[in-house]
Amino acid sequence: MGLSYLVFPGANHTRFEHALGALYLMRSAIDVLRMKGHEISEEEAESASIAILLHDIGHGPFSHVLENSIVPGISHECISLLLMEKMNMDFSGKLEMAIRIFKDEYPKKFLHQLVSGQLDVDRLDYLSRDSFFTGVSEGIISAERIIKMLDIRNDQLVVEIKGIYSIEKFLIARRLMYWQVYLHKTVLSAEHLLVGALTRAKELALQGEYLWASPCLKSFLYNRVSIEDFKTNGPVEGTPVLELFAQLDDSDIMSGVKSWCNHPDATLSYLARCITNRNLYKIKIRNKPFEENKVEAIRQKIEKYFGIGHEMVKYYLLSDSITNSAYNKDSQKINILFKNGKISDINVASDINLSGLSETVRKYFICYPKELDIK
Amino acid sequence: MGLSYLVFPGANHTRFEHALGALYLMRSAIDVLRMKGHEISEEEAESASIAILLHDIGHGPFSHVLENSIVPGISHECISLLLMEKMNMDFSGKLEMAIRIFKDEYPKKFLHQLVSGQLDVDRLDYLSRDSFFTGVSEGIISAERIIKMLDIRNDQLVVEIKGIYSIEKFLIARRLMYWQVYLHKTVLSAEHLLVGALTRAKELALQGEYLWASPCLKSFLYNRVSIEDFKTNGPVEGTPVLELFAQLDDSDIMSGVKSWCNHPDATLSYLARCITNRNLYKIKIRNKPFEENKVEAIRQKIEKYFGIGHEMVKYYLLSDSITNSAYNKDSQKINILFKNGKISDINVASDINLSGLSETVRKYFICYPKELDIK
Amino acid sequence: MGLSYLVFPGANHTRFEHALGALYLMRSAIDVLRMKGHEISEEEAESASIAILLHDIGHGPFSHVLENSIVPGISHECISLLLMEKMNMDFSGKLEMAIRIFKDEYPKKFLHQLVSGQLDVDRLDYLSRDSFFTGVSEGIISAERIIKMLDIRNDQLVVEIKGIYSIEKFLIARRLMYWQVYLHKTVLSAEHLLVGALTRAKELALQGEYLWASPCLKSFLYNRVSIEDFKTNGPVEGTPVLELFAQLDDSDIMSGVKSWCNHPDATLSYLARCITNRNLYKIKIRNKPFEENKVEAIRQKIEKYFGIGHEMVKYYLLSDSITNSAYNKDSQKINILFKNGKISDINVASDINLSGLSETVRKYFICYPKELDIK
Amino acid sequence: MGLSYLVFPGANHTRFEHALGALYLMRSAIDVLRMKGHEISEEEAESASIAILLHDIGHGPFSHVLENSIVPGISHECISLLLMEKMNMDFSGKLEMAIRIFKDEYPKKFLHQLVSGQLDVDRLDYLSRDSFFTGVSEGIISAERIIKMLDIRNDQLVVEIKGIYSIEKFLIARRLMYWQVYLHKTVLSAEHLLVGALTRAKELALQGEYLWASPCLKSFLYNRVSIEDFKTNGPVEGTPVLELFAQLDDSDIMSGVKSWCNHPDATLSYLARCITNRNLYKIKIRNKPFEENKVEAIRQKIEKYFGIGHEMVKYYLLSDSITNSAYNKDSQKINILFKNGKISDINVASDINLSGLSETVRKYFICYPKELDIK
Repeated sequence: MGLSYLVFPGANHTRFEHALGALYLMRSAIDVLRMKGHEISEEEAESASIAILLHDIGHGPFSHVLENSIVPGISHECISLLLMEKMNMDFSGKLEMAIRIFKDEYPKKFLHQLVSGQLDVDRLDYLSRDSFFTGVSEGIISAERIIKMLDIRNDQLVVEIKGIYSIEKFLIARRLMYWQVYLHKTVLSAEHLLVGALTRAKELALQGEYLWASPCLKSFLYNRVSIEDFKTNGPVEGTPVLELFAQLDDSDIMSGVKSWCNHPDATLSYLARCITNRNLYKIKIRNKPFEENKVEAIRQKIEKYFGIGHEMVKYYLLSDSITNSAYNKDSQKINILFKNGKISDINVASDINLSGLSETVRKYFICYPKELDIK
Repeated sequence: MGLSYLVFPGANHTRFEHALGALYLMRSAIDVLRMKGHEISEEEAESASIAILLHDIGHGPFSHVLENSIVPGISHECISLLLMEKMNMDFSGKLEMAIRIFKDEYPKKFLHQLVSGQLDVDRLDYLSRDSFFTGVSEGIISAERIIKMLDIRNDQLVVEIKGIYSIEKFLIARRLMYWQVYLHKTVLSAEHLLVGALTRAKELALQGEYLWASPCLKSFLYNRVSIEDFKTNGPVEGTPVLELFAQLDDSDIMSGVKSWCNHPDATLSYLARCITNRNLYKIKIRNKPFEENKVEAIRQKIEKYFGIGHEMVKYYLLSDSITNSAYNKDSQKINILFKNGKISDINVASDINLSGLSETVRKYFICYPKELDIK
Repeated sequence: MGLSYLVFPGANHTRFEHALGALYLMRSAIDVLRMKGHEISEEEAESASIAILLHDIGHGPFSHVLENSIVPGISHECISLLLMEKMNMDFSGKLEMAIRIFKDEYPKKFLHQLVSGQLDVDRLDYLSRDSFFTGVSEGIISAERIIKMLDIRNDQLVVEIKGIYSIEKFLIARRLMYWQVYLHKTVLSAEHLLVGALTRAKELALQGEYLWASPCLKSFLYNRVSIEDFKTNGPVEGTPVLELFAQLDDSDIMSGVKSWCNHPDATLSYLARCITNRNLYKIKIRNKPFEENKVEAIRQKIEKYFGIGHEMVKYYLLSDSITNSAYNKDSQKINILFKNGKISDINVASDINLSGLSETVRKYFICYPKELDIK
Repeated sequence: MGLSYLVFPGANHTRFEHALGALYLMRSAIDVLRMKGHEISEEEAESASIAILLHDIGHGPFSHVLENSIVPGISHECISLLLMEKMNMDFSGKLEMAIRIFKDEYPKKFLHQLVSGQLDVDRLDYLSRDSFFTGVSEGIISAERIIKMLDIRNDQLVVEIKGIYSIEKFLIARRLMYWQVYLHKTVLSAEHLLVGALTRAKELALQGEYLWASPCLKSFLYNRVSIEDFKTNGPVEGTPVLELFAQLDDSDIMSGVKSWCNHPDATLSYLARCITNRNLYKIKIRNKPFEENKVEAIRQKIEKYFGIGHEMVKYYLLSDSITNSAYNKDSQKINILFKNGKISDINVASDINLSGLSETVRKYFICYPKELDIK
């Protein structure tokens, strides 16, 4: 949940709790499918369990923030896989099948769908969990009921028609959680500050400036690390990159940012203080792009107010967009199983028009320091 | 919730609890609106509270069942009003304003909308309550949050744009609760049996047959009572009709039905035993009407199996339809208030297509005794 | 919960829900004990399940009220057993083992202890359930945790030392629920009114007076029925007594009482109206008996106020006592299993002094019509 | 909750949430007391609210751990007060009354009792909160009900007799939470490891060894700071001590410990790795002290196994005791108000013997590395 605790004070739950929850739902799903007559061996059950337990292990602290700052272009899925492969070596090949399921290379395709798909146990867990801890009760879904309605046809997960209303509600809840929690404007504002601080820190580090940081964070500030480095596991200062990455946690980021409040670089210390003192940027959000001349006016105001050059404005002004799509009809579908054996996409099966849910909605936002006082 | 406890064993909550809950939400709504600067006098607040506390008081036991059997054509809204007027006399006119609000004759129209409208506190309470007690968790809505988003423009309730996702979710939840709970097929089957038993009992009573029944139930079995009788409060056996009706409760109906298990009339005792022993009719439900020739075949099978005449078949076979419409766009709208002061219908304001929710969906069902063994 | 809904409006849950809940806990307990290596055959598991499912089946409507009025001296345990034996015949002996467990005649004694003992699943279910539905949150216990701590030594249920705090809390919660819910003074007052109404009704019936009542209730009003009649299942008006008793439910009692509001007998109609209109007797409760001269003074005031004879005063004045004992150290003990294998009574094992919990506390109360206006 | 998330994965709630919760309960308590006719001015209400909001502000990260390692002998109450005084200056004296309430120097003594006493809103909040997030459901208390029962007599908080069972349950729950959560043996073990790591780090720092640590943590490792330094707010490296302390948070401690996993000092790196890899010491707990000769034997085994000198054994072996006392009868009492106006201590008023709850129970424990393999 990254920085969302700044808006929802109860949202302090961890990825570890989520992994346990998703594991629990995976076991339930396997029980249900077995009871409906589908054969799932003990090894397959264990491997699917391992795959879900480890599916998020490649996330760094403040995941998307890091992907957009100090380890750009390196996806957590890719790192999850590298870590699983590392563990597979440590455990003499016992994770082989789990990895094949994770990569969708295992013949029983529905196992991969349970790990990663439009109705995977990952989503079923985090929607309810995040809803609970933020107090946004509309996100509550009946994971247990949806799982009871699962079945398999042609090696694909399907949902019995009896569960169609629960699926509709799941899609609506998902969309709502995105707008109200994951893409909450104050959370966006905070995340962009953190991206800025880390990006600026790395910029300074690569210029040879001194920056206080924990040893593992330092490795990623003072070195350009590519996905190739992760894969070949080339060393940085004597330790393999992957191991260094695995050592990183929230405390490295937060103690670093806090220490930068007094850094001589005006921009870095400004960003660090904004985050540490919860003095977040003002953010405006709307359905169409902001006019370029208006954005330019703000840009100039910023240069003047902060006495900075054009190339530094990006740390003070962010103009970007976000998108939300509850149901992606082009990727794996949610299939509904009718009593007569027919199978339809949820979009067709539902007696309400769900087209809105599968359309991608884009919103535009702009954010900048509050003290600029722009209306 | 009528007979729905036959399907959801926890659904034993009462109309009294619902009235208290709706009263609580009314007080919250009034607090919120006052805090937003709208003037609501103490008398208005009290009257709106009385109106919501009494809004359902005209419901008889197993409300819709009764309206379709022994007191046909007499709506509970009408009786609620008569009872309020009676109480108004008893309390020397103190319910005057409450009655005007209830009848939508009071100048501040939004007070009536809180009592009866597309977002009234009645619905806000019962959706959550019924969802909780049935265990159908998808019906849970955030009544508290919706109420916090309420405001008034041009004497009409509006919902701040921030609350739009909660409203979408409320409409989806409402639709889901109708299909999964209120119109649950087993509940339909049970209700139709009870309508049958009471209708047959009244038929026999009017023919002069002896029927055991509690005194107040007897009054409605042995007399044809019109809405005029309620209004003029003409007496039946010495007691005003309205008072007799107010005396009726679940125990009169259930003790009556139970005693009819041994009634000499084969049809009445059959229906009574089906209800008492939870031996419900089989019910089939689908999206298009059942073919008349198929229905006719069942009709003939019934005549033969039970050895009854054509005119009695209606007690054994029911072919009817149900409809569900979460949002009625033709009646009072749900209006969304944008930050710039603009107001739009939820259908327009939402970025998903809600047209499905405002379309009336009709389903067809047919039900008949299980022992007929028809495929 | 009898009439406690008059105090706790949410307490409308039923004995059926409780039986399902206790069954669920029984299955959990059996799973736990099996996992700890104790052999329990499928037949034993099923029989223990049947025994708990049916353990309360002999309760009439408003159980203790009935035992103190129209079916005096007939315990529900005894009737439960008779009904199980009846069902055993209907199911060709399949309940044999369940009955032996229920009667504590089965070799594995711990099975009986799960059905009926100081830590039986009956109590574990009803404490939590009643706590939940009344809103008296202090009664919540962790049934699930207690069950996980169960074990068996020498064919006796024991609780692992790790669970000792949960047991202490269970005993405290039980005591609290008795004083705050089961023996709530307003509930006591209501129950004594209902005992009075039914007792008076039977008195009148035996004198040959006409009383409206449902057929099965009538059988118990117009006939003296002994436990022998239940056992021999002698007929009353053509139907075996046991069957008649099984037909009785809340609706018979409540529709009867309601109809008696207009009965010519002044005492019966007074009591019936008090219940129907929730015009309950005033009740005073304290730790020592009320002085006889004070009680006598009230008695005389009642005779004068209601213009009744001495022998009728009992319907208007009740002076009695109630007792509460959370832990009965003389009956089956709660045994704690230490890590070294030693077993001690909870009283000894606990590091707080629980003697208070095993002492029987007696309170005295007196109740009479409010209109007497006695200070 | 310090390190208890190592045992209860859901226990990630923060002191901030607790402060908000306690504030909420304070407002409820003030409302209740005002409704019972006690005068509490707006300024008093605000000041009591400030006092409770800030009562815990002096806690450092892993509070008791720090008090026992790098800032020895400096109580959090003392620091809370210093921080309030600092804020009082910043807010030009607006916290004056809050500070007097906090220090129990304000005439209305009951306000202090609400902030700090045997029934303060602090405890009422944290018991329920910690119970909820750990899942130890027995700790749930009815804070709301206890607050409704509060009253004042002779400027002292009292509890109406109706609430006595809730108080008994509160005391039992408190005792249970201490044994099952706050003093959970695995939590104790983890905390002692963290105390060891920080103590060793400071020891090394004072000897002039290099230690990676965040700037504010460094200040407390490389300097001996006394309570006098806090009071005079003398500077350490240019920043006032109090401000440095306020900057410390969990991320400083955890990033520090993590970095020490590779420190050249064998003991420090051992302790750091034990914590970071959740490789906790084995802990044994019992009711009487461990025999000195047995402890000595372990001591020698440790010296030999780790090849360390006698003076370093304290980092590997801890032999200590913990105490628990739910109700301290010698300090401020919990007073029960009877209907006749009499007031008694809960110990006297309760009809169970609570003496066990006011006795201090002491348990002894010993903990050491698992690899020693001692039985």
